[in-house]
Amino acid sequence: MYSFRNDYSEGAHPKVIEALTATNLIQTCGYGLDDYCKEAADLIRHQCAAPQADVHFLVGGTQTNLIVINSFLESYECVIAAHTGHVNVHETGAIEATGHKVCTAYSPDGKVTPQMVEAVVAANTTEHMVLPRMVYISDTTEIGTIYTKAELQALRACCDKLGLYLYLDGARLASALTAEGSDLTLADLAALTDAFTIGGTKNGLLFGEAVILTNDLPKAHFRWHMKQRGAMLAKGRLLGIQFKALMSDDLFFEVGRHANANAVYLRDGMTELGYDFPTASPSNQQFPVLPNSVILKLQDLGYAFETDHVVDDTHTCVRFVTSWATPKAAVEQLLKDLAAC
Amino acid sequence: MYSFRNDYSEGAHPKVIEALTATNLIQTCGYGLDDYCKEAADLIRHQCAAPQADVHFLVGGTQTNLIVINSFLESYECVIAAHTGHVNVHETGAIEATGHKVCTAYSPDGKVTPQMVEAVVAANTTEHMVLPRMVYISDTTEIGTIYTKAELQALRACCDKLGLYLYLDGARLASALTAEGSDLTLADLAALTDAFTIGGTKNGLLFGEAVILTNDLPKAHFRWHMKQRGAMLAKGRLLGIQFKALMSDDLFFEVGRHANANAVYLRDGMTELGYDFPTASPSNQQFPVLPNSVILKLQDLGYAFETDHVVDDTHTCVRFVTSWATPKAAVEQLLKDLAAC
Amino acid sequence: MYSFRNDYSEGAHPKVIEALTATNLIQTCGYGLDDYCKEAADLIRHQCAAPQADVHFLVGGTQTNLIVINSFLESYECVIAAHTGHVNVHETGAIEATGHKVCTAYSPDGKVTPQMVEAVVAANTTEHMVLPRMVYISDTTEIGTIYTKAELQALRACCDKLGLYLYLDGARLASALTAEGSDLTLADLAALTDAFTIGGTKNGLLFGEAVILTNDLPKAHFRWHMKQRGAMLAKGRLLGIQFKALMSDDLFFEVGRHANANAVYLRDGMTELGYDFPTASPSNQQFPVLPNSVILKLQDLGYAFETDHVVDDTHTCVRFVTSWATPKAAVEQLLKDLAAC
Amino acid sequence: MYSFRNDYSEGAHPKVIEALTATNLIQTCGYGLDDYCKEAADLIRHQCAAPQADVHFLVGGTQTNLIVINSFLESYECVIAAHTGHVNVHETGAIEATGHKVCTAYSPDGKVTPQMVEAVVAANTTEHMVLPRMVYISDTTEIGTIYTKAELQALRACCDKLGLYLYLDGARLASALTAEGSDLTLADLAALTDAFTIGGTKNGLLFGEAVILTNDLPKAHFRWHMKQRGAMLAKGRLLGIQFKALMSDDLFFEVGRHANANAVYLRDGMTELGYDFPTASPSNQQFPVLPNSVILKLQDLGYAFETDHVVDDTHTCVRFVTSWATPKAAVEQLLKDLAAC
Repeated sequence: MYSFRNDYSEGAHPKVIEALTATNLIQTCGYGLDDYCKEAADLIRHQCAAPQADVHFLVGGTQTNLIVINSFLESYECVIAAHTGHVNVHETGAIEATGHKVCTAYSPDGKVTPQMVEAVVAANTTEHMVLPRMVYISDTTEIGTIYTKAELQALRACCDKLGLYLYLDGARLASALTAEGSDLTLADLAALTDAFTIGGTKNGLLFGEAVILTNDLPKAHFRWHMKQRGAMLAKGRLLGIQFKALMSDDLFFEVGRHANANAVYLRDGMTELGYDFPTASPSNQQFPVLPNSVILKLQDLGYAFETDHVVDDTHTCVRFVTSWATPKAAVEQLLKDLAAC
Repeated sequence: MYSFRNDYSEGAHPKVIEALTATNLIQTCGYGLDDYCKEAADLIRHQCAAPQADVHFLVGGTQTNLIVINSFLESYECVIAAHTGHVNVHETGAIEATGHKVCTAYSPDGKVTPQMVEAVVAANTTEHMVLPRMVYISDTTEIGTIYTKAELQALRACCDKLGLYLYLDGARLASALTAEGSDLTLADLAALTDAFTIGGTKNGLLFGEAVILTNDLPKAHFRWHMKQRGAMLAKGRLLGIQFKALMSDDLFFEVGRHANANAVYLRDGMTELGYDFPTASPSNQQFPVLPNSVILKLQDLGYAFETDHVVDDTHTCVRFVTSWATPKAAVEQLLKDLAAC
Repeated sequence: MYSFRNDYSEGAHPKVIEALTATNLIQTCGYGLDDYCKEAADLIRHQCAAPQADVHFLVGGTQTNLIVINSFLESYECVIAAHTGHVNVHETGAIEATGHKVCTAYSPDGKVTPQMVEAVVAANTTEHMVLPRMVYISDTTEIGTIYTKAELQALRACCDKLGLYLYLDGARLASALTAEGSDLTLADLAALTDAFTIGGTKNGLLFGEAVILTNDLPKAHFRWHMKQRGAMLAKGRLLGIQFKALMSDDLFFEVGRHANANAVYLRDGMTELGYDFPTASPSNQQFPVLPNSVILKLQDLGYAFETDHVVDDTHTCVRFVTSWATPKAAVEQLLKDLAAC
Repeated sequence: MYSFRNDYSEGAHPKVIEALTATNLIQTCGYGLDDYCKEAADLIRHQCAAPQADVHFLVGGTQTNLIVINSFLESYECVIAAHTGHVNVHETGAIEATGHKVCTAYSPDGKVTPQMVEAVVAANTTEHMVLPRMVYISDTTEIGTIYTKAELQALRACCDKLGLYLYLDGARLASALTAEGSDLTLADLAALTDAFTIGGTKNGLLFGEAVILTNDLPKAHFRWHMKQRGAMLAKGRLLGIQFKALMSDDLFFEVGRHANANAVYLRDGMTELGYDFPTASPSNQQFPVLPNSVILKLQDLGYAFETDHVVDDTHTCVRFVTSWATPKAAVEQLLKDLAAC
């Protein structure tokens, strides 16, 4: 049975594998200074309408978050995040390991609002407290919700008012930008954030996150930060080759749309079967509440998916994730099997 | 013209690419908990004759060094290295960024001796100084030399006497173990060190370092260390698949032998042409002294290689590196071109 | 007018000044290895009924917290605290600057309960999250409440069950142990915690915190931790001399009782005048809610005290602190002035 | 017998004790925001002819060094020091614990020269290496030598050329500025460095280092750095009161002259007795070579002093230190006893 555990259960999109194979024996210099990286960066700058932006390619998400955040912050400065934020919950204290506190605000839908930011700033006013200096958001959020352009503009205005940087973690950005109700573009992100990432790992690459720096502050020495944290890939070309393929021929968005289409199909099918989704998600992560008995039956059938949280003695909220690789037939079969539960 | 700049100028050995392609659409769980990683770890344990060892797969060398070293050391403890050691010179202070001092000893041949270790320990005796607790060595060293079994046994005895851990960075281990004069085996390394690595990046993989932990200390929570430093690859399977291919059918050693054969051919040919090698290297890095005029001619011909250090006003010591991908014909052509200089 | 801003507005208790003056020209060795430190440590061990405990003397509270916590924790481990905990709010991210996350639980009365601890542990279960390993509590808490013996025993049992260390920050310990309703002794603290501190700064010394380590783990190299963080006082004798004076002739408790008596007198007087105390405090910090108009009048009269939080548009919760130096007459005058407001 | 072990064997200069006693019961606000600190800072700014400088008061030297250095450096930047530098040898890796590498140059006399600085900078040129960004010097040096104005000007010019900050650790600055051959003033230091310290601990205070920041970079948030590292004294007044006394009525220099006079008397007397001083020191630390038999005899007589290094099988280089508290009679007695050895 198909695994809906996550969006990195397979290798890479066939076009990415092809690109890696085709270039395998070509010699390049190392550490991301090759032409593939330059071309991929140019493609990204072009699609972001951000000719002045710096683009760097890193391997993974936690690595990227700790480096970007640390590259902006002074020792005594902290980053603000939703309590559900990846940097707060699922990175084993990676940000703190670089010396920075993550100050959190409770967020029912995984999104950060100006009100939350203002409350954290208002509570940290003297040298006895950390100095809030950056807002971390993720799009899609960890629970599948997405930001609208108006929401992002409001956050930008709030950050400008309070002297904060705005950083957007785009690990699932393709899903976010192609989701129902999305009105954001790559160019919007480049215009409204100080830095953001375009996630590859969860969108068809073997691995890879592109960092787009629009704020000048960390530009000059970002590669020093990368190297110091062990994030400079010797064969950096691998990232350039993959991102060049991903950002060409609409592949980035095509992959996002494919994942979303299957997720929405799954969501709507489950809704018809009477299952509830406590948080409305238009993206490739869906969180239905299932009776524990149903969960056991699906697992017996060989389905894989993750548990999110216990709802009550007999119900659990679980997570189904779709990706570039999810066949529509797998979702159809799941719905059929669910109907028979 | 061929680039002798390093041993990571190409992608991966064809067998590795094949393995990645063949498994691309198979679903596995993430973060290195898949069966490919298990099989690769079992192969390594078997070849190391170390059934109790823990094996982890990481992406790059600096990342691996900072995690392994930090997983052994308390805050106030330091690691001892040759002044030429990679952790001292070429990792942008990655070890210090985890809070640990690198205490160095001057080493003319890049190797650490018991005498050097004893001197550092003797100089750090109270709580006003860092506490030496680990010895870092690399094999091959950064200047191409290799350790003999007797040398490694002497270091082990010294470490036992002084209560130190011994860690061997095997970024170029295949070249070391298959070099002229080598009498070390993977099993020797597992028996004589507390931790060592088997480098993949410089030996035919796209990327990847295997960490072999024989000392129990860091075993229980090594994955926490990995995740905190951003070193847990989401599609960890990529490391398992590659290392499974590398450790099967003698490929690891075959690749090392191929690189060494070409390096020795290059060295002997240059020696015949009258060029000097200040440090005798039996491995895949060769450091001849060339007249600057010759260097310019080679560069004009399109050869790529790195400068190591200035010898005098008219001579420079340079580095030529061979790999699994170096064709013998490329070396022959180089020697021909050199002879014509 | 008297300042009720804090319990460190004056210098030191006269007996402490005398001790410093009397010993001023005696030569001792440095760094806390002198006889005064030994005698003070012996006095503390004796009063704690903990002959095996290690005792160290440090200068300040934040310094002490960051060193003690880091001396117990591995890189990936975190400390649990109340959301009001000093280490979470008022140390400018000092714990995070040593690399450790502070995981918090919401606590209405500033105390940590086993339920809170269990909830944090239950939420951090894999290598993608930090590993909870220590509970931080303060007694008195930051809002003046104190722990009972039963509460501390319950926390100890919880920590034992979950494999956690228990650390008690005793910056205001004298006030806690001598407060109404306290049934804890120094010996109880030594028996029930892995480490705790006896605060001097807020209890009549010029400065100084004594750390009592009952758990063996950090004993061997605690002085390395101290030195590395800049916490080893050259003239360590100053700490020994002061703590020797403080722990002799009941001075430690006498000072606590004096501060508490004035605080309770102030509290009861204000209560009679109709003012409300949202959190009941038996110790030397009192948090009444005052009309803003009254606050302004008191400030006009020259009284100093800190604002805690806004209650509504016309009321603010403020903090009055008493100490060894607070004259009863100053409290009487304050109550008289308040009555006239 | 008198202890020549160090210059912090006694408490404080009587004038300092008097000042602390006289102000003991006066209430002030905490954390160095009191009037005594303001007055002391003004005195220092005046004597430094540096009205724009920021002055902060910290407790100890290692604490001060780690905070000042970290307040100037980005994560990937390093500080250059002599191999004998306090930050390299005697601070238990305190600088590395804040994440920064200390790059050293071998210095026979403990001083850093422009040539040394240039060599370190020349060796660290890419993102694979740390970026040198500050030069750390101490005056007096750890082996008693002092900088001339010409030397400091040359270092300043070198730092300007290379874009480096210059930081001078003045733990023994009073001795340096009043030594034979010194032509430097406090105003020179303020003009030629980006930051320097005026040491109190080794010059008659109970404790305390004044940091003078002339470079604007760390000014705005230096107190955040202090608090985060546990270096903000609650009763900060103690530092203000002491430094006010020290910087009044020429006491700072008087104390330095007293210590130096006794040191030079000791040095000249020992020279007459035929003992050798490998490094010429004009300051309050003297390093004679003594036969081991003589060392034993002195120790039997009750003299205390530290061993510096072994010279040969029968001779050791030792250290004698004088201070504000050293009576001339103690030196006379020592010379008499030596003559009788």
